[in-house]
Amino acid sequence: SKWMDLRIRFRHILFAIIGLIVLVAVATAGFMALENLKFFDAFYLTIISLMTVGYGDIVPETEAGQKFALLLIPLGVAFVTYAMGAVASYFIEHQLSVKVWNK
Amino acid sequence: SKWMDLRIRFRHILFAIIGLIVLVAVATAGFMALENLKFFDAFYLTIISLMTVGYGDIVPETEAGQKFALLLIPLGVAFVTYAMGAVASYFIEHQLSVKVWNK
Amino acid sequence: SKWMDLRIRFRHILFAIIGLIVLVAVATAGFMALENLKFFDAFYLTIISLMTVGYGDIVPETEAGQKFALLLIPLGVAFVTYAMGAVASYFIEHQLSVKVWNK
Amino acid sequence: SKWMDLRIRFRHILFAIIGLIVLVAVATAGFMALENLKFFDAFYLTIISLMTVGYGDIVPETEAGQKFALLLIPLGVAFVTYAMGAVASYFIEHQLSVKVWNK
Ligand SMILES: [K+]
Ligand SMILES: [K+]
Repeated sequence: SKWMDLRIRFRHILFAIIGLIVLVAVATAGFMALENLKFFDAFYLTIISLMTVGYGDIVPETEAGQKFALLLIPLGVAFVTYAMGAVASYFIEHQLSVKVWNK
Repeated sequence: SKWMDLRIRFRHILFAIIGLIVLVAVATAGFMALENLKFFDAFYLTIISLMTVGYGDIVPETEAGQKFALLLIPLGVAFVTYAMGAVASYFIEHQLSVKVWNK
Repeated sequence: SKWMDLRIRFRHILFAIIGLIVLVAVATAGFMALENLKFFDAFYLTIISLMTVGYGDIVPETEAGQKFALLLIPLGVAFVTYAMGAVASYFIEHQLSVKVWNK
Repeated sequence: SKWMDLRIRFRHILFAIIGLIVLVAVATAGFMALENLKFFDAFYLTIISLMTVGYGDIVPETEAGQKFALLLIPLGVAFVTYAMGAVASYFIEHQLSVKVWNK
């Protein structure tokens, strides 16, 4: 049923958002430890990397930090893509069900 | 009906484009204020960031500007993705309806 | 019919690829003129920008070149996204039609 | 049938992942040879380029290495997009089949 579909999509979004929050927290803590960065700089490096902007103003400089980044980036990009896809398909699904409703 | 669908998709595109214009305007004004950049440099930083190119030639340098960028970038990337998806699905939908018409 | 669908998708891919080639040619010529770059450097800047890698080793330095980049990048990213989507959906469509054939 | 669909999607994922591994291996070897980089730096440059982060801390500096990057990046981005799309559609397909099963 339509309601079932919406609930499943909503769970997808929840899963993606919780996954992203955990990933960002782990990444920030990891960069603080491995790269000796203060909290905000590690968080900034995390977001600028996961969004694939990569300004290059703060980059991992130790090999440990670089290895950590290589693990983090593919995972994080997958989660960001998944989360945006889940939100988009939720809106589309919702709109379609509202449209059917109104017919 | 097909016409309804096209109208809904058209509204999606309008919403996405208006959202993007507002976001780019707010971001440009924000970077001018927080980073003390002239209009064109703030606009350049905004587009280069939202499109995730991130050359690194102009970057936010104050913590306020960096925090603003961290807010702006995920929102802006979501809007760009949404806008491009809306335009693409409008063309596909339109093409399909034309195809059905011609059968 | 399936054949019609494949022909339409094929035209999408052709359109996307021709569009991309024209865009890359115009962009390379534009950067050569505006940024006084040699052919290969202008081509390198074009591809590194359109693919949103943005290493930052070669960047537009004149305001004319930066304005040109701001025009080029959203257009180019849209074309790259469209071309990859068209190719992907062609393969999926093709596979589906082959699958139906084999049943 | 549903099972057929899942098997086809699974083959898509396998193809994408094997393709990506081969591409990353070739790219790493290529950057080691052309750019005279040690293994880890070549691998780091490969991943940071394919994920379109492009920090700019390590970039191809010879024209041979830059040409190699221009070949590698569009191919690699296509494969990463394809692999993520295949994994995502596998999960969605799988979820749908489970849902139908449970009805
Ligand atoms: K980038
Ligand atoms: K970059």
